[in-house]
Amino acid sequence: MSDTLLYEGKAKQVFSTSDPDLLRVHFKDDATAFNGEKRGTICDKGVLNNSISSFFFQLLESKGVETHFVKQLNDRDMLVKKLAIVPIELVVRNVAAGSLAKRFGWEEGVELPSTVVELYYKSDPLGDPLINRSHVAALGIATPQQVEQIEGAGLRVNGVLREFLRQRSVVLVDFKLEFGVFKKDGKILLGDEISPDTCRFWDAETGDKLDKDRFRRDLGGVEDAYQEIWRRLKGECNADA
Amino acid sequence: MSDTLLYEGKAKQVFSTSDPDLLRVHFKDDATAFNGEKRGTICDKGVLNNSISSFFFQLLESKGVETHFVKQLNDRDMLVKKLAIVPIELVVRNVAAGSLAKRFGWEEGVELPSTVVELYYKSDPLGDPLINRSHVAALGIATPQQVEQIEGAGLRVNGVLREFLRQRSVVLVDFKLEFGVFKKDGKILLGDEISPDTCRFWDAETGDKLDKDRFRRDLGGVEDAYQEIWRRLKGECNADA
Repeated sequence: MSDTLLYEGKAKQVFSTSDPDLLRVHFKDDATAFNGEKRGTICDKGVLNNSISSFFFQLLESKGVETHFVKQLNDRDMLVKKLAIVPIELVVRNVAAGSLAKRFGWEEGVELPSTVVELYYKSDPLGDPLINRSHVAALGIATPQQVEQIEGAGLRVNGVLREFLRQRSVVLVDFKLEFGVFKKDGKILLGDEISPDTCRFWDAETGDKLDKDRFRRDLGGVEDAYQEIWRRLKGECNADA
Repeated sequence: MSDTLLYEGKAKQVFSTSDPDLLRVHFKDDATAFNGEKRGTICDKGVLNNSISSFFFQLLESKGVETHFVKQLNDRDMLVKKLAIVPIELVVRNVAAGSLAKRFGWEEGVELPSTVVELYYKSDPLGDPLINRSHVAALGIATPQQVEQIEGAGLRVNGVLREFLRQRSVVLVDFKLEFGVFKKDGKILLGDEISPDTCRFWDAETGDKLDKDRFRRDLGGVEDAYQEIWRRLKGECNADA
């Protein structure tokens, strides 16, 4: 593949393709946390996140959520539509964990009385600050209509994934989404990835973390957790069962 | 006045009155900043903030904004309607300053392309975190309708005060409002105070700060700044003119 490397992120490389409207995303095993302060490698993470994300994108497309996904090319590569990224991270939360638990002094694991939807300004130098719709307007990073579409899509994604995972004994605690505009038709599409790097997944029975928190918090069993999520998605039995 | 002290805050005392629906607010000279880390006294601040707040509340009432203000009783005391306080601080911003400038790496003094409206959860132990509407719902501290009323009132207050101050060569940079529910009729009313303790006022010509930032940042001339704002409100000439 002689495509040009356009961008290298923490966990992915993005390459051009022969079609100017399409990109190839290559999933790496590199892992970082705390805005790049912690670094490491998770064996086969790239392979698993490519498969898991491809699986989720196809599931969402089948439920009417428009995404950048075109097809899975191989173990580590995904073909996607080229988006002008909106520099907003949308976080949707069903259960208190991470920064939300800290922010409100809540114990991790408390089910939220209502879904929390947060916007963060994607900016490493600023540390991805929490923002609201009036900040988005003042920053000029999206129109009010786009923010509405993004929040609406986030809630639809939550509805689809939460129920799907519940049937596989996985609690969807929270997740982060990114969106962009597909130049060809101006539509806002779901981009980035949906994986244990970007979601918190807890085993519904044991409460075990099956996501990147195992890496962030040095809990061990990182590779197993990513494998386990992939097994659950494919409908294979819990390894412990 | 043999009323009972119900509550003592950083800058005010609140007393019961013979009418269970009314309270007496007593304005002190005490000043604190940075969540109580910095403490001091600003001579006659209580007298000035009582007069300035009474003035603004009357101005706002005349423009159709409903407030807790009943009347100014004397130098340091104001009679107000008793509210069940909504634990939200509403901040409205026209110019980048303070925590907003820090959050986005903006230089202080940049006029915002659109008005920024922020909700903070009133909680000293949590450090008054920035929140959004979905946090308000999950915290159960106000209904969506109440948040809408509060944000709408904040924008109306901004419209009235900004224009009034502009005519007196004062830039309304930003301000904080608090609201509560008047039990008698269930209405959301504007409460607390509107003063150099809760607003950023800059001289339109010189850019001089005429507010509590003089105390927070040890700029000197604190008392003069509060006096100057009161003179401007009364329509007296700028002392330097």
